[in-house]
Amino acid sequence: MTENYSIPNGFKFAAIGAAIKTQDRDDIAIIYSEIPCVSAGVFTRNVVKSPSVIYNMERIKNDKAYGFVVNSGNANACTGQQGMNDTIVMSQTVKDGLNITDGEIFVCSTGVIGVPLPMDRIIPAIKRGVAKIGENSFMDTAKAIMTTDTFPKIQSKTVEIECKTVTISGITKGSGMISPNMATTLSFIITDAVIEKSALDKALRESVEQSFNKITVDGDMSTNDSVMILANGVCGNNVINTDTPQYKKFKKVLDELTQELAYMIVKDGEGATKTICIEINGAETQDGAERLARKVADSMLVRTAVYGRDPNWGRIMCALGGAGVSFDPKKIDIYINGAQIVANGVGIGKEKEASKALEANEIILKVELKEGKYNTKIYTCDLTEDYIKINAHYTT
Amino acid sequence: MTENYSIPNGFKFAAIGAAIKTQDRDDIAIIYSEIPCVSAGVFTRNVVKSPSVIYNMERIKNDKAYGFVVNSGNANACTGQQGMNDTIVMSQTVKDGLNITDGEIFVCSTGVIGVPLPMDRIIPAIKRGVAKIGENSFMDTAKAIMTTDTFPKIQSKTVEIECKTVTISGITKGSGMISPNMATTLSFIITDAVIEKSALDKALRESVEQSFNKITVDGDMSTNDSVMILANGVCGNNVINTDTPQYKKFKKVLDELTQELAYMIVKDGEGATKTICIEINGAETQDGAERLARKVADSMLVRTAVYGRDPNWGRIMCALGGAGVSFDPKKIDIYINGAQIVANGVGIGKEKEASKALEANEIILKVELKEGKYNTKIYTCDLTEDYIKINAHYTT
Repeated sequence: MTENYSIPNGFKFAAIGAAIKTQDRDDIAIIYSEIPCVSAGVFTRNVVKSPSVIYNMERIKNDKAYGFVVNSGNANACTGQQGMNDTIVMSQTVKDGLNITDGEIFVCSTGVIGVPLPMDRIIPAIKRGVAKIGENSFMDTAKAIMTTDTFPKIQSKTVEIECKTVTISGITKGSGMISPNMATTLSFIITDAVIEKSALDKALRESVEQSFNKITVDGDMSTNDSVMILANGVCGNNVINTDTPQYKKFKKVLDELTQELAYMIVKDGEGATKTICIEINGAETQDGAERLARKVADSMLVRTAVYGRDPNWGRIMCALGGAGVSFDPKKIDIYINGAQIVANGVGIGKEKEASKALEANEIILKVELKEGKYNTKIYTCDLTEDYIKINAHYTT
Repeated sequence: MTENYSIPNGFKFAAIGAAIKTQDRDDIAIIYSEIPCVSAGVFTRNVVKSPSVIYNMERIKNDKAYGFVVNSGNANACTGQQGMNDTIVMSQTVKDGLNITDGEIFVCSTGVIGVPLPMDRIIPAIKRGVAKIGENSFMDTAKAIMTTDTFPKIQSKTVEIECKTVTISGITKGSGMISPNMATTLSFIITDAVIEKSALDKALRESVEQSFNKITVDGDMSTNDSVMILANGVCGNNVINTDTPQYKKFKKVLDELTQELAYMIVKDGEGATKTICIEINGAETQDGAERLARKVADSMLVRTAVYGRDPNWGRIMCALGGAGVSFDPKKIDIYINGAQIVANGVGIGKEKEASKALEANEIILKVELKEGKYNTKIYTCDLTEDYIKINAHYTT
């Protein structure tokens, strides 16, 4: 968690409690730019989408946007036409309060599925938030969007573009129902860069691909996952488009930001005690590398073994073999935090060293396939009794 | 667990302790028919296969087989050339002891991966087993092949074929690393039917498809999974081939047997307190039905919710939506043990009734898609803290 972080100019924040799921915490966040922004978003590929996702996917086509209103504690998914009505009302309440007539306020919800939003509490809370906009910090909004997260997730970066300091800041929340086949989680990124909408869209899509799409906590894909970005242009740099050299600089920093935010989600995986990086090297194809990495990352047996500091590398071999990718098991080397444990598909009797290596909090399981030149890394966390405890009693 | 079961004539059994992983239990089983058998087998699709699987896949082409030698406590996988040598020696030791010169003894191993077999203890144990062949029961072999199983799994059926009573009996073991994309587990079926090899092969393949391939415990696929059948023909019925009406009778009983054995595996899923049947009705295609059912069955969030008696049906919707199958969420009905909880994609406020229904030990989650005419059922179990405990410390 960063304690000191810069925030792009022109953005204001509010965090308010509406007692959606529990009392005594903020569960609504408003992020607002006085200056209209260009926007981009990557959304869940789940067939079952929250009305808020459907709303945002449609409204993101607009040229102008002013911000987000987000609630935790209730995903407003599988709530029928009422859910869509509620989404529209949430957005409109912010727009009315801030006199926005020419651009969008996006709506995001996270929490339990299938329960109608308590609009009788949400609308007054949003109004209170609008009234005190600017009195809260970005960190306060990071706290308000938490569900089972154990810490707020915020990160910030700056980059010099034409002697101007561009700031990119983001918040995100985890920590269960995270799978690499989609956008993953709720994440809100804001920047004061001047950038074309198409360039912002391309940058975000590519950035999500190598960050939020490289993490997995339980292989499930949420109905609400969204990563969205707003750029208000307050910085005053010359406009960035995909042809300018500044695009690369901006993209590089955005990539770092999204990677660090995504890593925080894994670090805060439900019940997790360790992060795990699955590193696949030397695959015959990129797709093969990804499938192998994800199969290992999603293996409950691998993740419980890491939790138990059990150097049971046979489970890694087994997961690789079940990925639907062909390779020669007799060529495989496996390393745990640099300590080799398998050479050419066979154990080399280094279980004791591997067990010692598994005492670390950050575990790298590296697999050398020696089949080709394609590599990848996927991040996950260990699987513990606490994951079960957290998820066995979530709604009730 | 059946207490009284008939066993096909002509088969003899031995169970012996070789202290492979632990003392004070039998961990080697020998199943032997004095009369040569026809054989069939379905094997793991994992790229990483135990040498014993490779051995059996090759040797099953032979016309004659006499039985199995099986060890638990060690999978003899990822053990290189030594692993294959050990497999051959295990088979040959039984053949030598029983004077078998014209047919096969198959070898199966189950347990930890990557550790060479303790052949110095296994070979003398096999010799002791051969010397006392016939002194043990089929139930004793069911006990000897157990790993993390909490009860032995055995089932038996009879069927009248031309006024002769054909017996089909089977044993199996679970209970982790079970996924529906392959043969699943070790299972040995014996019968005294007279049946052509090609008919036996077809019957077994189809039977596995609708039994062992319909269960999932943790989505992982083992390096050793095998379902094998031997038919010694002692019953003396006219030979069954796929064109005879007797084939259907035989197949029907075999299907019942394999289904009941497979269900025992789910019932004994590691740490499980409940079985779960995912019933998908009205899918547009059979493949779609299977994918939807498997996605729900593999969802850790659904499985933990069932464990916690938490009627969190949103997780079922969410898992369905992430299966990569298109459908209209607004048409979905969901029932928990007959109690409807979702109508047309929206909750109907019956959480209390659903929570009550979840107190049962056998849970049926029924999904009506109303898209087409294809149905399926997949079986799994709930996910508990004990699954984590069992698997966090398995090798050490």
